[in-house]
Amino acid sequence: MNNEVLDNEREQTGESKKIITRQNFLKVMGSMVVTGGVAGATIPFFSSKAKKEVPKKSIGSILPAGTIAKRVAADPTKIPAPIHRNHAISHDVTLEAKEVTARIESGVVFKYMTWNEQIPGPMIRVRQGDTVNLTLKNSTSRMHNIDMHAVYGTGGGNMATLVAPGEKSNMRFKAMYPGAFIYHCAVPNMDYHISSGMYGMILVEPPEGLPKVDHEFYVGQNEIYTVKEAGEGGLHDFDFKSMLAEDPTYVVLNGEKHALTPDVHGAMQVKTGETARIFFVNGGPNLTSSFHPIGNIFTKAWSAGAIINKPERFVQTMHVPPGSTGVFELDFPVPETVKLVDHSLTRVVRKGMLGEIAVKGKERVDIFNPNPSDKT
Amino acid sequence: MNNEVLDNEREQTGESKKIITRQNFLKVMGSMVVTGGVAGATIPFFSSKAKKEVPKKSIGSILPAGTIAKRVAADPTKIPAPIHRNHAISHDVTLEAKEVTARIESGVVFKYMTWNEQIPGPMIRVRQGDTVNLTLKNSTSRMHNIDMHAVYGTGGGNMATLVAPGEKSNMRFKAMYPGAFIYHCAVPNMDYHISSGMYGMILVEPPEGLPKVDHEFYVGQNEIYTVKEAGEGGLHDFDFKSMLAEDPTYVVLNGEKHALTPDVHGAMQVKTGETARIFFVNGGPNLTSSFHPIGNIFTKAWSAGAIINKPERFVQTMHVPPGSTGVFELDFPVPETVKLVDHSLTRVVRKGMLGEIAVKGKERVDIFNPNPSDKT
Amino acid sequence: MNNEVLDNEREQTGESKKIITRQNFLKVMGSMVVTGGVAGATIPFFSSKAKKEVPKKSIGSILPAGTIAKRVAADPTKIPAPIHRNHAISHDVTLEAKEVTARIESGVVFKYMTWNEQIPGPMIRVRQGDTVNLTLKNSTSRMHNIDMHAVYGTGGGNMATLVAPGEKSNMRFKAMYPGAFIYHCAVPNMDYHISSGMYGMILVEPPEGLPKVDHEFYVGQNEIYTVKEAGEGGLHDFDFKSMLAEDPTYVVLNGEKHALTPDVHGAMQVKTGETARIFFVNGGPNLTSSFHPIGNIFTKAWSAGAIINKPERFVQTMHVPPGSTGVFELDFPVPETVKLVDHSLTRVVRKGMLGEIAVKGKERVDIFNPNPSDKT
Repeated sequence: MNNEVLDNEREQTGESKKIITRQNFLKVMGSMVVTGGVAGATIPFFSSKAKKEVPKKSIGSILPAGTIAKRVAADPTKIPAPIHRNHAISHDVTLEAKEVTARIESGVVFKYMTWNEQIPGPMIRVRQGDTVNLTLKNSTSRMHNIDMHAVYGTGGGNMATLVAPGEKSNMRFKAMYPGAFIYHCAVPNMDYHISSGMYGMILVEPPEGLPKVDHEFYVGQNEIYTVKEAGEGGLHDFDFKSMLAEDPTYVVLNGEKHALTPDVHGAMQVKTGETARIFFVNGGPNLTSSFHPIGNIFTKAWSAGAIINKPERFVQTMHVPPGSTGVFELDFPVPETVKLVDHSLTRVVRKGMLGEIAVKGKERVDIFNPNPSDKT
Repeated sequence: MNNEVLDNEREQTGESKKIITRQNFLKVMGSMVVTGGVAGATIPFFSSKAKKEVPKKSIGSILPAGTIAKRVAADPTKIPAPIHRNHAISHDVTLEAKEVTARIESGVVFKYMTWNEQIPGPMIRVRQGDTVNLTLKNSTSRMHNIDMHAVYGTGGGNMATLVAPGEKSNMRFKAMYPGAFIYHCAVPNMDYHISSGMYGMILVEPPEGLPKVDHEFYVGQNEIYTVKEAGEGGLHDFDFKSMLAEDPTYVVLNGEKHALTPDVHGAMQVKTGETARIFFVNGGPNLTSSFHPIGNIFTKAWSAGAIINKPERFVQTMHVPPGSTGVFELDFPVPETVKLVDHSLTRVVRKGMLGEIAVKGKERVDIFNPNPSDKT
Repeated sequence: MNNEVLDNEREQTGESKKIITRQNFLKVMGSMVVTGGVAGATIPFFSSKAKKEVPKKSIGSILPAGTIAKRVAADPTKIPAPIHRNHAISHDVTLEAKEVTARIESGVVFKYMTWNEQIPGPMIRVRQGDTVNLTLKNSTSRMHNIDMHAVYGTGGGNMATLVAPGEKSNMRFKAMYPGAFIYHCAVPNMDYHISSGMYGMILVEPPEGLPKVDHEFYVGQNEIYTVKEAGEGGLHDFDFKSMLAEDPTYVVLNGEKHALTPDVHGAMQVKTGETARIFFVNGGPNLTSSFHPIGNIFTKAWSAGAIINKPERFVQTMHVPPGSTGVFELDFPVPETVKLVDHSLTRVVRKGMLGEIAVKGKERVDIFNPNPSDKT
């Protein structure tokens, strides 16, 4: 779509005014929702560099022979179950460093670094007092390691877990304090590695566990810095210079633009009357997220993932610093599409930071009536 | 004023040292306070682009014939009264999208988009459980709509309220949870529309209401991205490229540089011994505000505008993410000028983000004595 | 070290792969820890400007004759003792504005502005209700003053304390509310002065004092904007243009890159089983710090330095806005190196923002076992 359709920019395009009606604009907005939402608007006219669109068919040829673009977005529902134990146990956890060439969005390819081929990396779930035997396996050609914020110990384990290509490393720690903590690669180029996908969450439940909810979702935000512009076709090389300026090309939820929307890998699914808990990790490496659920509210919000504290109630937008987390509970009284965004809206509109929760159920026009003249 | 007077930059200008005395520098600071304060220092020597000063008289000629530059800064005192009801009612609220060509500062003109020709848009005030019939009227040539953070429903109502030029739209919702919430335009180019002024606040009071204070003020911060530099004369076109970099030209309170100071539309007014509540909305679209009252303290601060929570006491600087709000209470024990700023100080010094509260009353030299050698 | 050693960047350098083993990489990481940690990686290949390395010996010749590069980093342990009084007293405090030419890092020199030749400036410690007679002495060639967030009064005292070169100024105030507050220079070019070092902390203890801890440390973060790149040798002039873009060259703890590490002025020192309180002030002038202790956790955290509030427990990363503070308590159950960073990691990896706490004591392999195959 072009920008005139988006905004009727007569004075910017110099063209004569097109007839824009509510009906055809809704169609545009609707298709944007279907194709990834409002954030589809990576619009040519503000581009500073020339666009070089690479036909989608040719992308295969720019990748190493035999490379297949994979899904890197973690399934937000594939997480360990809540804990109901009242005693400590020991966990054997293995994380495998893997490089994955995959799509940021249609036509745009990036060389990701991941834990277990997913972004964010696998969610680890333990109980306060449990012991974790953590093994790293390195199936890449670079050095990697882990700094885990749940660990008392040098570098959160980064020296202990340093692992060369083709090798394994190992450390053991006791989860001493409760919370939802980030883990991330912490080699000297750690900002590059995290930006490329090497971060995840370890949840340390308090001894009494967490309140029951109907759904738990696991999502993570990070910035991707590339030498091209958002939407420009082809392989995007990493750009250290824009990272130095904290000026990313993409800001994404679960590693890809609009990964968790119907047009890509599908929205999260709930029913009206249900509750959900969102485990959110901000890998950064640099930007604070102003995390917000469009069309909803965080009924309970735990800043910094510090779940032992009293939650804040009815928070519209929660800052989540890079290298931190947030835990949120939501109610869903009406059927709707809830969009999870960073409310630094240019990151949503032009850089890809948006995921969706589809809420199915019976309309409640007493709460939300989108067309009162029809229905009352 | 030139920069040497500001800072005696001998080494930067290469000029010989002027005689700077405390007295004539205070005069400079004093006049800066009068003309808009410390933030008046948009100084030429750090400019990267050539300055093209347009004589003030010629600005009229660059605007469409018949256009009169208007005030866009909302009057911070023009807000609905506190609620003392103990039952729910229904409200009919109409917001009108209007384009306004107005001054950002003297000699600098911008094409604002507004709700009801004011920035922030009208403050809406309801009680938890009330119903709101919201009508949008569109008197512009673009599509607009509303995402209201107080609404359970898709897009906070953005699909329901989408309104074409010359038309009206309508939705109805029940205010289900308490808090001070932002509303903002949410068409695909929403960051552009919000940056241009399309945001405001809806306050949902808890059933028991809010504590009594002597004054309530309503202010909002947003960034303006233009193709020129701050202070450069003439019409400033919007700049999508600098918005992409989150690098604004202006950061303003109530839409204009120094709007709420004696030199522009006047400071807010209180007396010593009184109390005030500030309703603060950060439209963004991108930057977190580090909101701070110079020469004072937030006696009580509600982060995220989540007024049902226990307030934090004695907060000097509160982060307010874009797409969020803050509610603050202040005491005024001494006569002074309180300056409301974003403590990212370059936004104050060089981009215009400053408003004032004038506190009149009897000096209390036991609390603050600016000249102890004279008075004791 | 070059970047290939850092990250084995075959595809970026085009060179054939070197044999990288865990052992020789650990040696690299180890030496980086010794020489200032992980953050040592200011790496040439992402530089946009040509590097002009100035031989270290020639640096003396670019400074004014007779200038000796001094330490500007405040000693984090040189702070006033906790207060055990139960009555109010009066304090005479003098701060002296001094310009200091000193090293940001080895081979890189900057003209700092300071209070008492240290960054952050001297920590002032009083009890709520105490009176402070504050005298400013100006031993520089510029105008200076103080805005103290603990003060009720215009500009936090900035008009009252304005002091010309060679002169003195004076104000008196009562500390009316508790908290850890920033003070900073607030002349019109205040962002430049603060970036150059002119900020510090005044701690106003509540009447009942603070809980006993074994150690108290005082550290401050600020951004330095220069016309050169990080690591580029020679004198760095201040750069107003990059400050306007909030894009600093250095982000530092106590004014210098890696000041509080073994390789520069030494790490902070504690023993296992002890507790420590960190008084952290973010001068800014522009960036929010996402403050985090690598390998540890804030057992208690007071946002905004608002020490009268209930602390948050087990906070991994705390946002501290510019013009604000944080107060943190830590436990040290295991021997380790704790690294204090801003978790916007590019500031750590490439701009210098890192300090260390060395924790000495007996290993606790039940809590942290970096090599479980050896020890169990």
